Amino acid sequence: MTIDNIRYDDHAQKLYILDQTLLPNEEKEIELATAEDMYDAIKKLKVRGAPAIGICAAYCIYILSLQIKTQDSAAFCDELEKQAAYLNSSRPTAVNLSWALGRMCNKARRFEDRDIDYIRNQLIFEARAIHGGDIEMCHRISELGLSLVKDGDGILTHCNAGPLATSRYGTALGPILLGTEKGMKFHVYSDETRPLLQGARLTTYELYNAGVDVTLICDNMANTVMKNGWIQAVFVGCDRVAANGDTANKIGTCGVAVLAKHYGIPFYVLGPTSTIDMNCPTGDDIKIEQRDPDEIKTMFYEKPMALPGVKCFNPAFDVTDHELITGIVTQKGICRPPYTESLAALFK
Amino acid sequence: MTIDNIRYDDHAQKLYILDQTLLPNEEKEIELATAEDMYDAIKKLKVRGAPAIGICAAYCIYILSLQIKTQDSAAFCDELEKQAAYLNSSRPTAVNLSWALGRMCNKARRFEDRDIDYIRNQLIFEARAIHGGDIEMCHRISELGLSLVKDGDGILTHCNAGPLATSRYGTALGPILLGTEKGMKFHVYSDETRPLLQGARLTTYELYNAGVDVTLICDNMANTVMKNGWIQAVFVGCDRVAANGDTANKIGTCGVAVLAKHYGIPFYVLGPTSTIDMNCPTGDDIKIEQRDPDEIKTMFYEKPMALPGVKCFNPAFDVTDHELITGIVTQKGICRPPYTESLAALFK
Repeated sequence: MTIDNIRYDDHAQKLYILDQTLLPNEEKEIELATAEDMYDAIKKLKVRGAPAIGICAAYCIYILSLQIKTQDSAAFCDELEKQAAYLNSSRPTAVNLSWALGRMCNKARRFEDRDIDYIRNQLIFEARAIHGGDIEMCHRISELGLSLVKDGDGILTHCNAGPLATSRYGTALGPILLGTEKGMKFHVYSDETRPLLQGARLTTYELYNAGVDVTLICDNMANTVMKNGWIQAVFVGCDRVAANGDTANKIGTCGVAVLAKHYGIPFYVLGPTSTIDMNCPTGDDIKIEQRDPDEIKTMFYEKPMALPGVKCFNPAFDVTDHELITGIVTQKGICRPPYTESLAALFK
Repeated sequence: MTIDNIRYDDHAQKLYILDQTLLPNEEKEIELATAEDMYDAIKKLKVRGAPAIGICAAYCIYILSLQIKTQDSAAFCDELEKQAAYLNSSRPTAVNLSWALGRMCNKARRFEDRDIDYIRNQLIFEARAIHGGDIEMCHRISELGLSLVKDGDGILTHCNAGPLATSRYGTALGPILLGTEKGMKFHVYSDETRPLLQGARLTTYELYNAGVDVTLICDNMANTVMKNGWIQAVFVGCDRVAANGDTANKIGTCGVAVLAKHYGIPFYVLGPTSTIDMNCPTGDDIKIEQRDPDEIKTMFYEKPMALPGVKCFNPAFDVTDHELITGIVTQKGICRPPYTESLAALFK
């Protein structure tokens, strides 16, 4: 990362985020000074990724606490909770957002018998603890993930579960970034991840800037890079893991897993334990969000989708093995396996 | 089809094509009057699909023959061959182009002892025979393909092998269009087919206009519609079939075949016998064209990619079955199957 996705300036007591909606074409930090700025940033995905939203919200609460005028600690806590409820309404389904806001408000309330300066101190400590906890969690996941691959391996990833979505290393991209820091060389293939192109716009941006050998492919090319023997492991993030291991993640993930199984490539899901929902028995109990058809039918993103230096692999065709084909229909008849015989018979 | 992709006006002796680069937003016929018009139309994919290019080129040769001034039949044939060589250079790899041009020139040469009006008559007969032969071939493939599905079936297709690429019915879309004419109802899912979006721009355009129930999906959603039980057959076209049945087609086709096998769905390739290359033993002998990275990195097509009425299925997530997952990596350790035990152990 050339710029932190969330940066709290201790000296100036100001909070900045990297506006992710402008990536990869523009690296612009914006200040979140007011509750409206903060609400807008979360709502419009300027900051995205459940852990990153949680971290950002924690700092937001601290910044807002500096603006509360009262000298009465209980009234201060009341006002803080009002602000938290407002921020929480920006993306009501993001678990980490309500979790982080709750943690901040609880901290304040626990010290409501102390003076406001003391509470504010506790709040910035708590925000830093949330941030630091996430960094530590990502680092540990990265270490464990790194134990699953070796120097020189090809790794395929889908969507974005990197530093922009979390802190520092990320989850699915963590082993790659940590290994690269240790001098290892991976060859990473990033699915562009239609329709919103998080793989193209965010994953290749993160990996390219970190000096990783990354190649951008369209989603339908994942099969070819696996078939070519270029992939030794698949790393993906997760949005919810059911108690039986069924895993919800960005659309397209399951298809990648089917391909990986076909080619005998290990498929790993990386995420914090907070993503595991032991109250959800199987994947059938996970509700899948349906989104706007216009995401598919119109191109929301008209600027370049990846940095100029990012490599692409763009084969026009692929070859389907005859074992996968049920029949070949020609004007002279339907050929069935074995094709060496049935196709030859057409020309006799 | 609301407009024929290639239309020869016998009365006016003029040739028109539907400019496919403007689809699906504009249905514009353009006249091909000069050799330069014709070269440009093929080169810039205004007419595309190997059979369609062949048919178009045959009519082009006839139109050009009307413009040749000489009264000497041998000189007439010489000039015709010069024009054919020029047209052939527009897309040198398209087999049908050189095949159709060769057929036209041979026809003329065979009658070089006759007067020029007679030769011109033979040329328009030949162009019509090429066109009619393609229609007949597509119709036969459509009938055979139709025998593989039943009323109410869900059918997935990838890229475009419909009337725009051929004549009348097309190949992969032929059974769907023929069945629809007979009053059958299919539920068709069309992969958008990145990077050039032929599935979105052309396949949904053709099927929607023919009154077929078609739903546009991103390529990475094919797995979900199969997993949901919505697909009873996959129909795709082909660019080259090796003697052992290995089939080259648009990038992404093989991945669809792997998914179909995983879900037990029959996967059919539809194409004329001219696509079968008995001199090519296996798919390893088929050279795959690498295309410009900018097709992936920048959005060439900024207008809507499908007609306003076309349905889309746009799930944000999917669920990967635990049987497909090699390991789930959390900050507390790597869980392996059986996950009901290994995940539960994390929380003890």
